[in-house]
Amino acid sequence: MSLVRVHNFSISLDGFGAGEPQSLETPFGHAGQRLHGWMMATRFWDPTTGGAGVDDVFAERHSIGIGAEIMGANKFGPPGWQDDADWRGWWGPNPPFHTPTYVLTHRPRPSLEMEGGTTFHFLDASPAEALAVATEAAGDLDVRLGGGATTIREFLTAGLVDHLHLVQVPIVLGRGTRLWDGLEALEDTYDVEAVSSPSGVVHLTLTRRAATSA
Amino acid sequence: MSLVRVHNFSISLDGFGAGEPQSLETPFGHAGQRLHGWMMATRFWDPTTGGAGVDDVFAERHSIGIGAEIMGANKFGPPGWQDDADWRGWWGPNPPFHTPTYVLTHRPRPSLEMEGGTTFHFLDASPAEALAVATEAAGDLDVRLGGGATTIREFLTAGLVDHLHLVQVPIVLGRGTRLWDGLEALEDTYDVEAVSSPSGVVHLTLTRRAATSA
Ligand SMILES: NC(=O)c1ccc[n+]([C@@H]2O[C@H](COP(=O)([O-])OP(=O)(O)OC[C@H]3O[C@@H](n4cnc5c(N)ncnc54)[C@H](OP(=O)(O)O)[C@@H]3O)[C@@H](O)[C@H]2O)c1
Ligand SMILES: NC(=O)c1ccc[n+]([C@@H]2O[C@H](COP(=O)([O-])OP(=O)(O)OC[C@H]3O[C@@H](n4cnc5c(N)ncnc54)[C@H](OP(=O)(O)O)[C@@H]3O)[C@@H](O)[C@H]2O)c1
Repeated sequence: MSLVRVHNFSISLDGFGAGEPQSLETPFGHAGQRLHGWMMATRFWDPTTGGAGVDDVFAERHSIGIGAEIMGANKFGPPGWQDDADWRGWWGPNPPFHTPTYVLTHRPRPSLEMEGGTTFHFLDASPAEALAVATEAAGDLDVRLGGGATTIREFLTAGLVDHLHLVQVPIVLGRGTRLWDGLEALEDTYDVEAVSSPSGVVHLTLTRRAATSA
Repeated sequence: MSLVRVHNFSISLDGFGAGEPQSLETPFGHAGQRLHGWMMATRFWDPTTGGAGVDDVFAERHSIGIGAEIMGANKFGPPGWQDDADWRGWWGPNPPFHTPTYVLTHRPRPSLEMEGGTTFHFLDASPAEALAVATEAAGDLDVRLGGGATTIREFLTAGLVDHLHLVQVPIVLGRGTRLWDGLEALEDTYDVEAVSSPSGVVHLTLTRRAATSA
């Protein structure tokens, strides 16, 4: 069974997955790189200078056993990228996905084949429909849900996420896109574990509980 | 120098310090006792059956070196308690404060002397004014800020809190009174530390950074 997994999704203490405004100059708004500083200090990010501790152990799971990614339109580009026929994502010619990658957008366009195995496909579809396509493409492997917060919330609400790894960073953003809205009682269907790291972040893992028969 | 300290203030993953609706039957709204289950399992709460680990170490700080408490009106009683001349707080004849205790309310009433050293005083005053009164009463000891979220936020915004201990509980409440609103960039003036406990909660301590001269 192919799983739907979220990895390394970083939030502030007040639950924001990005600041504001999102723009070409500031992909994460006023959050800047602060949500991902913990990751840039891992071996996963930089094999030469990075650390190999608990942050790294969590971070590298991002790449293991994944056959496709699904992301939201606002992760793929700044507001208005749909009006730019030449926009090919933030990541240069060889994006770090290396699998079919499905971008959810109300304004789809033709697929983009990149170097290194990443092909961007654009879908205007419900979470369940998009997941069916991505699962098919992933074969025996899992599907990574890449964010942002809006898309993760949408898939959680639809009951489609098996494993959610969040990284709570010790900053208060105050504004941006918030993860937790509308997710009351998530703990009824997920086991929640928290592990604090010496780096100052807290790794939260939410693992969907196996269905028990009544 | 007398400090202003918050202890054992429990919040959900999404930052709520109480659920809704607050009422005589449900002081914490739909949160019930879930925000404080961790504390009820400590020796601080129950010397006979409680544990003595990290949760207990944090919990017992609540009582050490405190000479006065300040709390908000909604901690003192359910909505409308101001219309009940007989309301004397939730805690029975011998409340667990054992010091002068200042209740911030727009509808003050005469002071109430209880058993065990607690006297409730009712103040319609700014945070700074209330703190001046409480600090005077506390003598050489510290002032505890008892919550709820609205009152803590108000004192943080006024720059009056030295030490903030939060306990993040692995539940998503979805609604209630939220702690983090309007506190953008709190990390600029506080050192933040996170420690996860085997019980599943995360202890967050925010310690005001010593002022550095420019
Ligand atoms: N904190 C992290 O670890 C992390 C990870 C990834 C991304 N991010 C950041 O998060 C921000 C983006 O997050 P976000 O919450 O603003 O947005 P998002 O989840 O990336 O994208 C939401 C948008 O995707 C499109 N969409 C979503 N579901 C759809 C569906 N079922 N059908 C059609 N279109 C659909 C809609 O765009 P349209 O209607 O415009 O087409 C929607 O407004 C960016 O700043 C990004 O850099 C952070
Ligand atoms: N999570 C925890 O660990 C924890 C700890 C303590 C309490 N609680 C819970 O939190 C809830 C209460 O929190 P809350 O945020 O709703 O309210 P709160 O902070 O207890 O009280 C806010 C109210 O206090 C009065 N007030 C505050 N500042 C004032 C000022 N400067 N001057 C005059 N009046 C002032 C106002 O009431 P009026 O205008 O009506 O007078 C205001 O609406 C309760 O459910 C309580 O059980 C939780």
